Amino acid sequence: MKRNIITVPIHRVEAGADASAQDLVAVEEPLQIRLAGRDIAITMRTPGRDRELAAGFLFTEGILCHASQIDGIAADEKGAIDVQLSEGVQIDFERLARNFYVTSSCGVCGKASIDALRAAGCPALPRGHPVIDARILPGLPQKLREAQAVFEHTGGLHAAGLFDIWGKLLGLREDVGRHNAVDKLVGSAFLEDRLPLGEHILMLSGRISFELVQKALMAGIPIVAAVGAPSSLAVETALRFGMTLVGFLRGERFNVYSGRERLS
Amino acid sequence: MKRNIITVPIHRVEAGADASAQDLVAVEEPLQIRLAGRDIAITMRTPGRDRELAAGFLFTEGILCHASQIDGIAADEKGAIDVQLSEGVQIDFERLARNFYVTSSCGVCGKASIDALRAAGCPALPRGHPVIDARILPGLPQKLREAQAVFEHTGGLHAAGLFDIWGKLLGLREDVGRHNAVDKLVGSAFLEDRLPLGEHILMLSGRISFELVQKALMAGIPIVAAVGAPSSLAVETALRFGMTLVGFLRGERFNVYSGRERLS
Repeated sequence: MKRNIITVPIHRVEAGADASAQDLVAVEEPLQIRLAGRDIAITMRTPGRDRELAAGFLFTEGILCHASQIDGIAADEKGAIDVQLSEGVQIDFERLARNFYVTSSCGVCGKASIDALRAAGCPALPRGHPVIDARILPGLPQKLREAQAVFEHTGGLHAAGLFDIWGKLLGLREDVGRHNAVDKLVGSAFLEDRLPLGEHILMLSGRISFELVQKALMAGIPIVAAVGAPSSLAVETALRFGMTLVGFLRGERFNVYSGRERLS
Repeated sequence: MKRNIITVPIHRVEAGADASAQDLVAVEEPLQIRLAGRDIAITMRTPGRDRELAAGFLFTEGILCHASQIDGIAADEKGAIDVQLSEGVQIDFERLARNFYVTSSCGVCGKASIDALRAAGCPALPRGHPVIDARILPGLPQKLREAQAVFEHTGGLHAAGLFDIWGKLLGLREDVGRHNAVDKLVGSAFLEDRLPLGEHILMLSGRISFELVQKALMAGIPIVAAVGAPSSLAVETALRFGMTLVGFLRGERFNVYSGRERLS
């Protein structure tokens, strides 16, 4: 098992004084994701849960739609992770190549707009369902932090937590890339055939970009809450697809950007 | 000029009370970057400084190496930004297609490893030059925050600031994507033929990933400081290429992960 934090020697400077010390940093390493032997993507990730990451990425990017399409997932000799397809499953690699060619630094993978997301067959969420008691929300960041306590002192890992509608933490994944943390979490549910996650809350340790809302939508998650700020496109997408979006969840305060009707 | 923050209606909840309010969110929108009429990349960015972003991206990703290769930069009718090449400049689009095909959510663009970075001809920085007075470092985050004060209340914009070796702020760029903020800053210097930035400090508002160190290296920046934590690969790359890397720069405290010899 690869380590996800390492110790590095540093100089710690405080009020002009300088001391040699050790610091923990989050591991960031490239992972090549292959599908049926073909290169699909390289992502910079924190090692661990690579199978979930690969499966979650292929699902949330709309390339695979059901776990039964996967025959197996294995690391090859070069460290790449290869997702093997079940017999008879066809992938349009030409279409993938066209979509991925224009992909860049920041997570869009050919679905750069809301319209494209809709064209990809992403369904709107059922209005007003589920309804949760809004008083559980302020407790979620604390539960997320406690569950990730062992890593917290690196200051370098994003967390994504899946909660049930009563606020019980069901799963937590961490990564240097916030989209990877979500892909690992969704990938875990995908591999166990637990999708869609229609009775769940996704809690994020940082900010909410379009990409994270898009991935949550693909997984059918109706409520997304975060400690940080959403972007304009995250809000717009949540409104369009009927997702409840909560930001700046800190202490007893939070902002509801969309889907207020799910909070009682 | 496109707006980079917008107002959205929200419900603000505090201690159980619920009020309608307005909130400012950072704008996130896709930008298609084209080179000589060909699609190169889509990035999710905050509008503004799109010419710098496109030029900076093409430079820090190793696709262009000098401003004289650019004949002009213009937005086309669909909102894409097209970088036109000067007469006689040849780009190996086949090689680009091969590299970009495997690119994914998180900023690697075919240079996913340190070895690939070295293969791309990224030079090591001159050891021990420049030397700066370490006492200027604690003042940098405050200068960055003051300069971005107008945007700070969205909580959603990363900042990248370029300082001289005496701690004077020379330029600031902001974006929902931290790599875009750096690309805008480097792109500005690239277009004005001010590269390499060998007598400068790059200050970042967040964490330091490999990608940010890689982009700073391409621009020849010898000292990178950040409020947040570096990743393992950021530290390793800084060590390998002789960059001074400072993290957790908060108040009078900071950690030096690499290149201590540039701090007196």
